[in-house]
Amino acid sequence: MSKKDEPVRPEARLPKGLFDTSASELRATADMLAKIRVVFESYGFEPLDTPAIEYADALGKFLPDQDRPNEGVFSFKDDDDQWLSLRYDLTAPLARYVAVNYHSLPKPFRRYQSGAVWRNEKPGPGRFRQFTQFDADTVGAASIAADAELCMLAADTLEKLGIPRRSYVIKVNSRKVLDGLLEAIALEGEDSTSKRLSVLRAIDKLDRLGEEGVRALLGKGRKDDSGDFTKGAGLEPEAIERVMTFVGRNVIGVGRDEVAGKRPLNDMERVGPFEFMDNYRTLEHWTNRIGGSPLGDEGIAELRQLVACCEAAGYGSKRIRIDSSVVRGLEYYTGTVFEADLTFEVIDDKGRFVRFGSVGAGGRYDGLIGRFLGDVVPATGFSVGVSRLLSALIALRRVDLSTVRGPVVVLVLDRDRIADYQRHAQDLRKAGIRAELYLGEAGMKAQMKYADKRGSPCVVIQGGDERVKGEVTIKDLIEGAEASKAIADNVAWREERPGQFTVPETDLVNAVRGVLARHKA
Amino acid sequence: MSKKDEPVRPEARLPKGLFDTSASELRATADMLAKIRVVFESYGFEPLDTPAIEYADALGKFLPDQDRPNEGVFSFKDDDDQWLSLRYDLTAPLARYVAVNYHSLPKPFRRYQSGAVWRNEKPGPGRFRQFTQFDADTVGAASIAADAELCMLAADTLEKLGIPRRSYVIKVNSRKVLDGLLEAIALEGEDSTSKRLSVLRAIDKLDRLGEEGVRALLGKGRKDDSGDFTKGAGLEPEAIERVMTFVGRNVIGVGRDEVAGKRPLNDMERVGPFEFMDNYRTLEHWTNRIGGSPLGDEGIAELRQLVACCEAAGYGSKRIRIDSSVVRGLEYYTGTVFEADLTFEVIDDKGRFVRFGSVGAGGRYDGLIGRFLGDVVPATGFSVGVSRLLSALIALRRVDLSTVRGPVVVLVLDRDRIADYQRHAQDLRKAGIRAELYLGEAGMKAQMKYADKRGSPCVVIQGGDERVKGEVTIKDLIEGAEASKAIADNVAWREERPGQFTVPETDLVNAVRGVLARHKA
Repeated sequence: MSKKDEPVRPEARLPKGLFDTSASELRATADMLAKIRVVFESYGFEPLDTPAIEYADALGKFLPDQDRPNEGVFSFKDDDDQWLSLRYDLTAPLARYVAVNYHSLPKPFRRYQSGAVWRNEKPGPGRFRQFTQFDADTVGAASIAADAELCMLAADTLEKLGIPRRSYVIKVNSRKVLDGLLEAIALEGEDSTSKRLSVLRAIDKLDRLGEEGVRALLGKGRKDDSGDFTKGAGLEPEAIERVMTFVGRNVIGVGRDEVAGKRPLNDMERVGPFEFMDNYRTLEHWTNRIGGSPLGDEGIAELRQLVACCEAAGYGSKRIRIDSSVVRGLEYYTGTVFEADLTFEVIDDKGRFVRFGSVGAGGRYDGLIGRFLGDVVPATGFSVGVSRLLSALIALRRVDLSTVRGPVVVLVLDRDRIADYQRHAQDLRKAGIRAELYLGEAGMKAQMKYADKRGSPCVVIQGGDERVKGEVTIKDLIEGAEASKAIADNVAWREERPGQFTVPETDLVNAVRGVLARHKA
Repeated sequence: MSKKDEPVRPEARLPKGLFDTSASELRATADMLAKIRVVFESYGFEPLDTPAIEYADALGKFLPDQDRPNEGVFSFKDDDDQWLSLRYDLTAPLARYVAVNYHSLPKPFRRYQSGAVWRNEKPGPGRFRQFTQFDADTVGAASIAADAELCMLAADTLEKLGIPRRSYVIKVNSRKVLDGLLEAIALEGEDSTSKRLSVLRAIDKLDRLGEEGVRALLGKGRKDDSGDFTKGAGLEPEAIERVMTFVGRNVIGVGRDEVAGKRPLNDMERVGPFEFMDNYRTLEHWTNRIGGSPLGDEGIAELRQLVACCEAAGYGSKRIRIDSSVVRGLEYYTGTVFEADLTFEVIDDKGRFVRFGSVGAGGRYDGLIGRFLGDVVPATGFSVGVSRLLSALIALRRVDLSTVRGPVVVLVLDRDRIADYQRHAQDLRKAGIRAELYLGEAGMKAQMKYADKRGSPCVVIQGGDERVKGEVTIKDLIEGAEASKAIADNVAWREERPGQFTVPETDLVNAVRGVLARHKA
């Protein structure tokens, strides 16, 4: 075949923003999801699954920061020319599901769902085009008790995963309160839509930019470290003051500016050096700031009920905290909004100490299902960012990805006896022991290397001598590795053969069990 | 707002061929997948996950019966104009993964993967546009022992799920043997490609159409019951005979035509009234039929090794059977092909008894990874059709989708005391009991109906009287339902209140535990 006729080889590569997941990360994720599932089930939520593909118009466009249609979503045409989209979250498909099955569902309807979602966005650090969410939603419950329950569920989930108390906080706000604030600075009405959005986005950045940064974004705008300028909301100084006295942290006592960024924080500081105001005091403070706006008052009254529910069940303001800085980008929220926030610090890629931040969020969206039914169907939900949460558990050393749990490897010394070796592997499997036959072409030395790479606890060896005597040799790789550190001499090594012993073939399973038991701890 | 200005409501609906999955089916599927995972792990396979989206050219087009490009696959353009596709199986992404990571992987590389795949096809009964596969593959092992292992893994998987022996068979064939047969009837070379495909597809239909149907498809063609005509391969009578003596079932003894379709089969008949030839005899029979073709001889020799491996490990011809009718539609198979076949009968939607058939399949594809690397990388795999397998377990009554495991429901009698009720629910959850607060607006009677619909074992009730005394009432819904059958009189009912009892609030958890324990069996 001439060079010209050679087939063009496709390049093996992944599109940007998409990733493969390794065995250790998958196992850790599966363990984590199983624990989350237990908590969600304990609150009475039932599992549901919906397909990845939906009609584009049924999903609607409710992504944060997406003003143009089709932006942010993977879409394609069906053969009848209708637009299909990959789901970008699990809430829009739930709304579609409830609308389709409204009459047969128990009401309220509680479901949890875990699955991949897709965003057609520019990928960046920690920003992927496919990621997994784990959601719980209650549909058909207008009661603020439903929101309170989700806040408690969020706290329980984090604790179940081993995140210590005072290392997390569930921060709660209300869109009604925020709208009350906007009313108070005369930003109601359709004409002010984009200005309202700018103000909310500025508030949302309090954690990252601090008070000065937010103040700039509320006014003329802000130039960041790289010199890029973000246009501000253009509020008058008086309105800016009004917003700032509302969003100013409800913190009593010392700030942490003196230490942050200068030296590593100690453990006490890392879990949060602040003392926050009691929730009732925060709500009173808000009443003084935005009281008089009917929407604002309604929001404050709802949050007061939420706090009462949580406190009665033992969840105080150290775990579930009313906090003015929570905004949430999604357009469809109508009432309570909340965030599960990890307060400990980690080192970012520039070597700075930064708070870990949000690992999940949610809120009330009473209008979303009504889009289909033309009727208000109250609903509220909470969504966990699965890979963010796994990173947090790794940072807290609750999860160790380096642990390899490999199978026992049965070596192949005599290729003609492969059926015998297969039988050894099969005997181990039948006894519930992970085992594999070496299936490659390489010699003894490479087979031992393979077993090492697989993280095998031991290998099973049967050469001609052993077969004649009806015996097998077992080499304990963990003990062997430790012993090899002690024995420097190559000759001594060959004589001692640490961790290696020979047993009758009929004792194979018991002998391997012994090795596994020895290394269990 | 005038009628004209009302917003257009989107219609809540799902695209064709896509389905939601209910709680009971999800739970049953999760249980099933967990068992499959245990078997796959016991053979040393490690989990891997790849994204749903890949470059179209990296996936390639290897769907059965898809001659036109882009057919069968959901595709769309990335913002840099490159074509992306949703994966249509888990094998093509594995090939891409191995090619990308070739140097760092242990070789042979064994991975399992479970996940959704998408086919842009016309949906039909049992034919969806999204479905789940569960695959195990061994890459980098040319040894036929790798294929043997997958056949045993398939058998173990079915038995682990409770499918009894003699209700399934793993049927094995080889593309090399089939190619040898085609060589023997002078169908080698590129000119005969489409004719070869027609012959293979005809053989593939033996189970469904019987010998007469296959004979017609090998010759001029066949008219089906609806009158549709399928064009045949156009073989000469002599060639047809040659093919038929090869594919003719290797059955000894009675057929089942006398009973099938006339009366329900008894259990013995249903698990298979045939006696099949021993595998070695089948292979000898094949040698006589296609002997002399080098490729055919190679295939037969490989299958003989596979049989030896399986028999040494205790898997005889009743479980893993050499069978001429297995072809497999995928173009990329190069050697062994096999199918996990359920032999018991179920009633189809026309009321006829039909064999359940295939729930999984696989084979060797030594060329697929080489597409990227320009080098032969031997590989073999097995893929389970997850929803087909679940249907089989339901048909065998190994899985019961009607079992509802609902939470305890705490009723809300006095809306002002919702924080108290929340605390009761929270106490139950902390004790590991699934519990929920009734979050709707309805009265007592509707709340009881809700608890019934949720499948709750009991409800917790606290009215004003009980609260004053510091008590709660527990109503056992399972006992109550049984008792209500016995008590016909409405008055007697109200006096007896079967299954209902009152305890001090502090005994709530223990009392509910008692009810749950009573109904555990």
